[in-house]
Amino acid sequence: MSTLKPTTSNGTAQNRDWRDRLYTIIFEADTDAGRRFDKMLLVLIVLSVATVIIDSVGAIRSNDYFVLNALEWLFTVLFTIEYVVRLLCVKHPLRYALSWFGIVDLISILPTYLAIIFPEFYYLIDVRLLRMLRVFRILKLPRYFDESQILWQALRNSRVKIMVFLGVVLIMSVILGTIMYVVEGPENGFTSIPVGMYWSIVTLTTTGYGDIHPKTPLGQLITSCAMLLGYGIIALPTGIVGVELAMTMMKRVPTTRTCSSCITEGHESDSTFCKHCGEKLDPYQFEK
Amino acid sequence: MSTLKPTTSNGTAQNRDWRDRLYTIIFEADTDAGRRFDKMLLVLIVLSVATVIIDSVGAIRSNDYFVLNALEWLFTVLFTIEYVVRLLCVKHPLRYALSWFGIVDLISILPTYLAIIFPEFYYLIDVRLLRMLRVFRILKLPRYFDESQILWQALRNSRVKIMVFLGVVLIMSVILGTIMYVVEGPENGFTSIPVGMYWSIVTLTTTGYGDIHPKTPLGQLITSCAMLLGYGIIALPTGIVGVELAMTMMKRVPTTRTCSSCITEGHESDSTFCKHCGEKLDPYQFEK
Amino acid sequence: MSTLKPTTSNGTAQNRDWRDRLYTIIFEADTDAGRRFDKMLLVLIVLSVATVIIDSVGAIRSNDYFVLNALEWLFTVLFTIEYVVRLLCVKHPLRYALSWFGIVDLISILPTYLAIIFPEFYYLIDVRLLRMLRVFRILKLPRYFDESQILWQALRNSRVKIMVFLGVVLIMSVILGTIMYVVEGPENGFTSIPVGMYWSIVTLTTTGYGDIHPKTPLGQLITSCAMLLGYGIIALPTGIVGVELAMTMMKRVPTTRTCSSCITEGHESDSTFCKHCGEKLDPYQFEK
Amino acid sequence: MSTLKPTTSNGTAQNRDWRDRLYTIIFEADTDAGRRFDKMLLVLIVLSVATVIIDSVGAIRSNDYFVLNALEWLFTVLFTIEYVVRLLCVKHPLRYALSWFGIVDLISILPTYLAIIFPEFYYLIDVRLLRMLRVFRILKLPRYFDESQILWQALRNSRVKIMVFLGVVLIMSVILGTIMYVVEGPENGFTSIPVGMYWSIVTLTTTGYGDIHPKTPLGQLITSCAMLLGYGIIALPTGIVGVELAMTMMKRVPTTRTCSSCITEGHESDSTFCKHCGEKLDPYQFEK
Repeated sequence: MSTLKPTTSNGTAQNRDWRDRLYTIIFEADTDAGRRFDKMLLVLIVLSVATVIIDSVGAIRSNDYFVLNALEWLFTVLFTIEYVVRLLCVKHPLRYALSWFGIVDLISILPTYLAIIFPEFYYLIDVRLLRMLRVFRILKLPRYFDESQILWQALRNSRVKIMVFLGVVLIMSVILGTIMYVVEGPENGFTSIPVGMYWSIVTLTTTGYGDIHPKTPLGQLITSCAMLLGYGIIALPTGIVGVELAMTMMKRVPTTRTCSSCITEGHESDSTFCKHCGEKLDPYQFEK
Repeated sequence: MSTLKPTTSNGTAQNRDWRDRLYTIIFEADTDAGRRFDKMLLVLIVLSVATVIIDSVGAIRSNDYFVLNALEWLFTVLFTIEYVVRLLCVKHPLRYALSWFGIVDLISILPTYLAIIFPEFYYLIDVRLLRMLRVFRILKLPRYFDESQILWQALRNSRVKIMVFLGVVLIMSVILGTIMYVVEGPENGFTSIPVGMYWSIVTLTTTGYGDIHPKTPLGQLITSCAMLLGYGIIALPTGIVGVELAMTMMKRVPTTRTCSSCITEGHESDSTFCKHCGEKLDPYQFEK
Repeated sequence: MSTLKPTTSNGTAQNRDWRDRLYTIIFEADTDAGRRFDKMLLVLIVLSVATVIIDSVGAIRSNDYFVLNALEWLFTVLFTIEYVVRLLCVKHPLRYALSWFGIVDLISILPTYLAIIFPEFYYLIDVRLLRMLRVFRILKLPRYFDESQILWQALRNSRVKIMVFLGVVLIMSVILGTIMYVVEGPENGFTSIPVGMYWSIVTLTTTGYGDIHPKTPLGQLITSCAMLLGYGIIALPTGIVGVELAMTMMKRVPTTRTCSSCITEGHESDSTFCKHCGEKLDPYQFEK
Repeated sequence: MSTLKPTTSNGTAQNRDWRDRLYTIIFEADTDAGRRFDKMLLVLIVLSVATVIIDSVGAIRSNDYFVLNALEWLFTVLFTIEYVVRLLCVKHPLRYALSWFGIVDLISILPTYLAIIFPEFYYLIDVRLLRMLRVFRILKLPRYFDESQILWQALRNSRVKIMVFLGVVLIMSVILGTIMYVVEGPENGFTSIPVGMYWSIVTLTTTGYGDIHPKTPLGQLITSCAMLLGYGIIALPTGIVGVELAMTMMKRVPTTRTCSSCITEGHESDSTFCKHCGEKLDPYQFEK
């Protein structure tokens, strides 16, 4: 992201200053103006997403057609202005336009305009719902929450373990789905192996819709075993993420104790000497 | 709460004494009389809530109409007396009357009286059910349980993380609800995006009522992925609260007890001598 | 249990010897014979419980009536012999007969005999099912598993916290059940507050049968919030027991380090001096 | 597995060399060729399992009969070649043929051949589905993932505890199933004790299909208690595995690294100097 920032070597000093300030407000969140812009944008996104959600309710759409339409145009114009300003103030507009959020920004304003040019498009509800992609922009905002970083890092660290776990669950669902397809058969709702796999994932995750369920005694016995198995297995991801979380949160405690000689960080509170250079450490004072 | 306590500067000595003693019994739980009052109140609240619950069962109401009515009046009178005494013994009656529990106390006795003045009110079941608010008064009582403090603090400490987590779940449910609204459509029960969101929360929390469930193969595939995702995500709040709980419970083990001779920290509360240098430790005083 | 053991002061030497040996076999599990008896008993209990279970399946009962009846009598005779021997070899037969397992033993053999004396009893299925109580006898046996002790202790230690937690869940279900009774009403299945409470427990535990489910938009909104709440709350018991388990399992590690001077156990691996008497400890060697 | 490796004492030097190389590629994963072979095999297994899954969907089978049949033969021939080569390059072909994976390999290719010899076999869908056993071969491959070892070990270590836990759940389901069979009876779907046990496992694991659910008030009360119980108990396996996982992951942090000067234990792997006395530590060698 930092490569998008306009450098001093580009444009006149005044121009640079103007673009630089806009960039700081729109793309960064370190200044008061930037934080205010982010908050306003968050409110706008939530309101515009709410409009699309409300619009999908048939009864409301027919009653408040004009209000919803006006709101939709308001949001579209505001997001269009934002999109244009973003393009103007980055150094490489094309690079932004082709980035993930650049494309999301474009796709979320396009359907409303297309509706004028091609009126028949307006009735294609699927296209208009692309505006819901705006909700992803909220993900750019939680840079305020230090906490979301911890959660994210715990999930990232347990990435491989969760993949292995999901792989095992997938293999189990293939085997279980096949067994139930054979045991229960199409007459009891298990019309094919994919349906059996769908059922076994519904069962192993303890969701249990009940749209498909075993009817033969043998099928019920197998299901009971599968559920107990799933019950024992539900512990794994919880354990994985829990331990990672604990480690991530623990690690934050001693990261600030720094050796004054070699600047190595993260000494434990009971250390007397730097573990890196052997220099004596300042006595530890627990801050807070 | 302690600001409500009548101070010595108010009223005559005798009056002060009488109000002071009532205050100690009703608002505090440090004396035997106070504890007995709290236990009696707890029993009364549970009985009166049980009466309202039983009253809602049609068959019982028509059979035991007079018994239930009499009990209701008994509880109302008892709680009225309690309310009046509370108003009398606090220094600032208005401040209590406008506090959260003051309002709950008033609202939970009012409906029965209103039923005499406005008989037609008696048939407004919704109003009479306000008596159920009394159940909140139980929350005032668990000051005996030291344990509930630990649970509460663990929840409070993980407040922000759980908010971030719920926010992510909400965004996921918006996206998932929209996708299923498009994929399955109104003919399969997904009549609008809010319904889709309701379904996705039912699914991601692994509740799975089965009132709405995917019927198309593509919908079932998306549901399977969503459930596995939810399965991996269910680990997060468990991990968050678990780690906070561990930290809260660990902290009770005093890490600040320090040997005055060799400055080693973290001695256990039952230690008499420093585990590091063998020097006698100061006798342990549990702070708090 | 040890008070039941016959002491030397009772009976002749020979008689004492005979009863003592039987007692060791039947009530204790330290000898080979005792362990063999326990294993045999476990197999018998499982088989007899399986017989009752199979007997409840209508189709099998009518086909294999005589086989099941014969098995039932075999188990009843065997358990009667065991009951009589138990009465004979304990010092205080009455005390055993009135203990929890003494009553279970009696109740589980009685129904079959009653069926001869009062033939009409035989058709009272409820009475015959009391034989299922034998399954509780398995709980006497897992003394072999050291592990079950850890699980049991972790559950016991978190006893109060889990009670507080269940209390909070109960209060939540009262409030939620009342709200849904008002919002959805009898026409949507919420016929009374107890039914609403049943529904809210089904929902908060994420079981979700789907026999009762919200049908109005407002009810679905409240349900969504309740489920997210339940999702955040499911973490609590997991965290509680997890932390207790961790502590129970951790505590087992350093319990064997003993001060040679004052015989205090449980010194940490980094201790140099006894925390109780200040004597120097032997240097720590991690066994295993 | 290493006992299958051909030793130098067997066959001529050339022959030995040829078999040795094939063995290294097919059975081991330490060379580039071996890893490439494993990846190719993984892709083949996934594709062949996908073919069987797709084949089970009625609509697709009738449309793309010839494509699916051709693919099935292609995979069968490829797996046959692999099976023959495996037999050729191990020292004791019979020992491989009778091993678990040897039998899986044979059974997963046999059905297709049997279909030519006994055409009537072709229509026995159950037999052809034995090809799904190939999916177990994926379990041979995750030797790359170091992580799966940690998960596996955590599950293995908590083996006994999870068995004890499942035993307790089973006893609970016997008791609960019997109670509900008595309380609800066949007219509410609880037709026998096994059905009651199936229902109680569906309930205690919070799956809740809703195919069988309590209809009487007493049954709903018992169910509510059972669910709250299950809710408190779901914590146990999570806690067990979580603690084991934490211990397994912690152990990798070397607690045995000891300063040769002051005998302080537990230095981190990146420490160069003792954190206690400042003495230089021996360079760290990761054991294992």
